[in-house]
Amino acid sequence: MNEKLEQLKTLLAELTDMDRTLAVVGWDQQVYMPRGGAEDRGNINSTLSAKVHEMATSKELGDLLEALKPYAETLDPDSDDACMIKRTAYDYERASKVPTEHVAEFARVTTLGQSAWEEAKEKDDFSIFRPHLEKIVELRREYAGFFKPYDHVYDPLLQDFEPGLKTADVQDVFGKLRPEQIKIIKAIKDRPQVDDSFLKTSYDVKGQEEFGVEVAKAFGYDFNRGRQDVSVHPFTTSLGIDDVRITTHYYPEHVTTAMFSTMHESGHAMYEQGISPSLRRLPQATGASMAVHESQSRLWENLIGRSKAFWKRFYPRLQKIFPAQLANVSLEAFYKAVNKVEPSFVRTEADEATYNLHIMLRLELEIALMEDSLKVKDLPAAWNARMHEFLGITPPNDRRGVLQDVHWSGGMLGYFPTYALGNLVSAQIMEKMKSQLSDIDGLIEDGRFDVILGWLRENIYRHGAKFEPQELVQRVTGTKIRPEPYLAYLSKKYSDIYGF
Amino acid sequence: MNEKLEQLKTLLAELTDMDRTLAVVGWDQQVYMPRGGAEDRGNINSTLSAKVHEMATSKELGDLLEALKPYAETLDPDSDDACMIKRTAYDYERASKVPTEHVAEFARVTTLGQSAWEEAKEKDDFSIFRPHLEKIVELRREYAGFFKPYDHVYDPLLQDFEPGLKTADVQDVFGKLRPEQIKIIKAIKDRPQVDDSFLKTSYDVKGQEEFGVEVAKAFGYDFNRGRQDVSVHPFTTSLGIDDVRITTHYYPEHVTTAMFSTMHESGHAMYEQGISPSLRRLPQATGASMAVHESQSRLWENLIGRSKAFWKRFYPRLQKIFPAQLANVSLEAFYKAVNKVEPSFVRTEADEATYNLHIMLRLELEIALMEDSLKVKDLPAAWNARMHEFLGITPPNDRRGVLQDVHWSGGMLGYFPTYALGNLVSAQIMEKMKSQLSDIDGLIEDGRFDVILGWLRENIYRHGAKFEPQELVQRVTGTKIRPEPYLAYLSKKYSDIYGF
Repeated sequence: MNEKLEQLKTLLAELTDMDRTLAVVGWDQQVYMPRGGAEDRGNINSTLSAKVHEMATSKELGDLLEALKPYAETLDPDSDDACMIKRTAYDYERASKVPTEHVAEFARVTTLGQSAWEEAKEKDDFSIFRPHLEKIVELRREYAGFFKPYDHVYDPLLQDFEPGLKTADVQDVFGKLRPEQIKIIKAIKDRPQVDDSFLKTSYDVKGQEEFGVEVAKAFGYDFNRGRQDVSVHPFTTSLGIDDVRITTHYYPEHVTTAMFSTMHESGHAMYEQGISPSLRRLPQATGASMAVHESQSRLWENLIGRSKAFWKRFYPRLQKIFPAQLANVSLEAFYKAVNKVEPSFVRTEADEATYNLHIMLRLELEIALMEDSLKVKDLPAAWNARMHEFLGITPPNDRRGVLQDVHWSGGMLGYFPTYALGNLVSAQIMEKMKSQLSDIDGLIEDGRFDVILGWLRENIYRHGAKFEPQELVQRVTGTKIRPEPYLAYLSKKYSDIYGF
Repeated sequence: MNEKLEQLKTLLAELTDMDRTLAVVGWDQQVYMPRGGAEDRGNINSTLSAKVHEMATSKELGDLLEALKPYAETLDPDSDDACMIKRTAYDYERASKVPTEHVAEFARVTTLGQSAWEEAKEKDDFSIFRPHLEKIVELRREYAGFFKPYDHVYDPLLQDFEPGLKTADVQDVFGKLRPEQIKIIKAIKDRPQVDDSFLKTSYDVKGQEEFGVEVAKAFGYDFNRGRQDVSVHPFTTSLGIDDVRITTHYYPEHVTTAMFSTMHESGHAMYEQGISPSLRRLPQATGASMAVHESQSRLWENLIGRSKAFWKRFYPRLQKIFPAQLANVSLEAFYKAVNKVEPSFVRTEADEATYNLHIMLRLELEIALMEDSLKVKDLPAAWNARMHEFLGITPPNDRRGVLQDVHWSGGMLGYFPTYALGNLVSAQIMEKMKSQLSDIDGLIEDGRFDVILGWLRENIYRHGAKFEPQELVQRVTGTKIRPEPYLAYLSKKYSDIYGF
């Protein structure tokens, strides 16, 4: 059995290397590829994805998994090897349902789709992106079909990012969440509003970069094993345990955008950098799921980065970098401004009270596209109508509306719900961490992020994807994903700020 | 037969895509990879190279080539398909001699080698690089062994870059070249020397970049299908016909380094960008050989970029960017300075009269390493002794001596001779071009680089690697590679400048 286990590990090492290759190629595509390179890159992605898929569904791999099944049952179910075999079998079964031709075609179409989306966003012209998105939705519907029978056509997409979760589960959680969040938003609306005009003047990009890097380093993001670049849409990608990169996007007239995006992506990146080296070149050398991943980006961005304690420590630094803009703004005023609640067009810039509504909007649209009850041509109108229904505002253009996110261009339907779930999990984890580390605010104010990072590494990061996401959440927090801690966090924070 | 031909093209398209993937990964490694990523990247390169090698030596490919042989013989030997089958069969035969394990190991070792070399160069400490280079030389000797019987152990390495060429051919050409170049150097030594001190003051990097990009664009390098970044050692790489990238390296105290490196790499890049789109995703979508490639980089860098006509056009621009440094320097004085002949330590900064001696030094050392008559541990001393013998100077440190070039760290033994051969070919091509375009100097002075680029595209670039290099040189210039035109060019240029 040992020999077969070694064979399995060798296959998985090669498969992981090829997956990382896709990550290198994808990073380059979003960060530095000249636009002219899209066609060549589409071919590269297509061929590479097909190779990866062939390896992931090879008979050799299937036979090894079959042969190792009885052995796996003799192992401690919490052991690395048992978890590896279980996870690999799960991935293998899913991948085997999808023909390689589909994978190759999807890779080509989404590569061209991303370039088209970038151009469409730049020119604020949905029609440039529309035929690409139509093809992508068609392919996603075909993809879902490979997983029949399913409870819901959206399930297979969702489960690519959130193993084990069903559309009905998400709808159930969102159903509880939505009225409560709307209550909070209403309570805030009745109170005197916060002034954040000083955040929207002009902030030199170099100063923004300096501050962002300083915070990321203070958090514990290791620049020797990573780097930060600029891309249209910020993201994190792991090119290996020791090469985890983040990107951001600077707006001179919106100082908070890059700042919080850097904290957000640092959270993702510290998760990946914190994975145990013993998982190197194994498929578990990644986050447990996107919701768990998002719980970390949102924890560092919001629960830490938008806390009073954080700004007690870092506001003097920011004032020093931007004296003209901030010297006369008090800590209290600044803290309130970065937590201002206001319906807004762009998800990544949304406050914590309205953020999840952006996600719910996307979930409804994605489900409608998948059910074919909404056509891509009607998507901009449907977007705007839902924005008005959910947040009472109408985007001035598609750039800040239906074209704002990168996800659909990359075919990542099914991804958005994990952002909202991540918010919920972040609060569950923070609750647990507070019960064990007592004075979190004190640690933040003292810059002892190493203690916080250490706790997260020990309890979450080092495990990578060893455990199923729901199981990991259960192990760490004692319950499955639930909205109560997040709602309690929001209520407490905003009643303090807005006084209700 | 048509069906088999289509099958062959499909296999070659996938193989080319995978090769381009290696180029993406390699570009990233040299330009942006954090140092911590070396181990992960070694694994990626190893697995990817092994996959490429498996594809390049697959039974399916071999059977198709075998089946298509009789058909190829019925084709016009100059047709694209006939050339493709011939070239593919050549590549297949060579690749099939090498075991995949060797390829995987070599990729891993050279990835780690490159990181070690970067560190060794930075710290000026050969001992950091030594064990890596020892392993690399050992692997290169093993590699050569797969090609037994050979005339010379160095032949298989050379032929990776220069199909059809033998070590004896190179030694023969170099044997003719060396005494003539030494004569020119001696004649120059007896004349009043040129002052270039104003080139070595302080030149703002931003201004250097502005000038370099302006020249590259004027030449015809298409930034929509490429980009320029910074790396330790400048290089060009093709990630696809429409994504051909260059790098450079700025030294504030050496304004000419980045300037001529950008022209050099632009020459390489315009070659790749000029390949006919009909060759996309075929192995011929690359230069004919490294010597032909170097002929183009050196043609744009030296025969054009160091000409009086070029500076008549561009010197006023450079003076405008650097008025403090150059306002009081005449065109004549500047032209002489950028053509100053002086024994120097660093190959990439060497003038045209001494450049080939740097290559001859490397060739001798590489041959000695391959013959095992020189040990890696004795390499720095051997380098310094030969520098003294060839150029009469001794490097102040290994940074500017044995550690200066990237090539050995990447395992590229056999590459250097192509630089000198490229010089020879550049003069042959220029001679021919002059006979057809009459007033080349006038075109350069008027900035009509489009006419020059058009001629080169028509006669050389569009063909890619369709023809064997010696055959291409013969077709374009009427003869095989020969030293006379280059020596005539050097004599004329330097007798004008130095008055002998």
